[in-house]
Amino acid sequence: MSLNEIYDPNNIFAKIIRGDMPCVKVFEDGSYLAFMDIFPQTEGHCLVIPKTEGATNLLTAPASMLSGLIETTRKVAAAVVAALEPDGVRIAQFNGSLAGQTVFHLHMHILPVYEGRSIAPHAGGSPASAEALELLADKIRRAM
Amino acid sequence: MSLNEIYDPNNIFAKIIRGDMPCVKVFEDGSYLAFMDIFPQTEGHCLVIPKTEGATNLLTAPASMLSGLIETTRKVAAAVVAALEPDGVRIAQFNGSLAGQTVFHLHMHILPVYEGRSIAPHAGGSPASAEALELLADKIRRAM
Repeated sequence: MSLNEIYDPNNIFAKIIRGDMPCVKVFEDGSYLAFMDIFPQTEGHCLVIPKTEGATNLLTAPASMLSGLIETTRKVAAAVVAALEPDGVRIAQFNGSLAGQTVFHLHMHILPVYEGRSIAPHAGGSPASAEALELLADKIRRAM
Repeated sequence: MSLNEIYDPNNIFAKIIRGDMPCVKVFEDGSYLAFMDIFPQTEGHCLVIPKTEGATNLLTAPASMLSGLIETTRKVAAAVVAALEPDGVRIAQFNGSLAGQTVFHLHMHILPVYEGRSIAPHAGGSPASAEALELLADKIRRAM
């Protein structure tokens, strides 16, 4: 049953939170961090995570964590819209590997979509360059 | 630009909230309503909506609405997992028609996924029977 993962304190997002792995940051406060997905499905694909470790997914997260997470997601999504002017935005959150989850630290996807442009598969292909992501992140940060 | 829809007080979810349209309810309190998607993409596909009218999508919703919405989504998703034992659960929220939004009243999709079973297209095909949805809803309600 893929919904019973144990929280691994060495998962990649925990390492990013601790500063042991780099990320291209879009937003950070005391409790939440937003950064560019290194395998963007579309231009401007961001992730929002709680900085507290322990919750693998939505089902195991306390209410106190979720309210800030969704509000941070709204704020970052609004900045993505202002900065990149997509034609729509999908918010997605996956629970369990069969649902598409690849990192077992609760996270929200912000996926801007653009007319006439396709959406790449999730967590596939080759990673984007840090330079390209930094240019997008800079636009989004200015719109926050 | 498909992200600038005006809230239409006669959208189908507003009618459901007012009792002018039927739905197969899973959960309801003073502020939120969860019900079975009539075009289920998978078995147990539910929607969660705020009962307050006015917010077309996540971007236009106040923080006070979002915290209860995500917590209600977590509760209903946990009941779906307990009742139907899927192998994973996707949470999705679409902003703008190009992102897949078809009703312009803020809503969260809870989409259980099952090993070896496919996911139907969004808002497509023929509607499920009220009887089939009622059987699923009954299982989910008992697990709340």
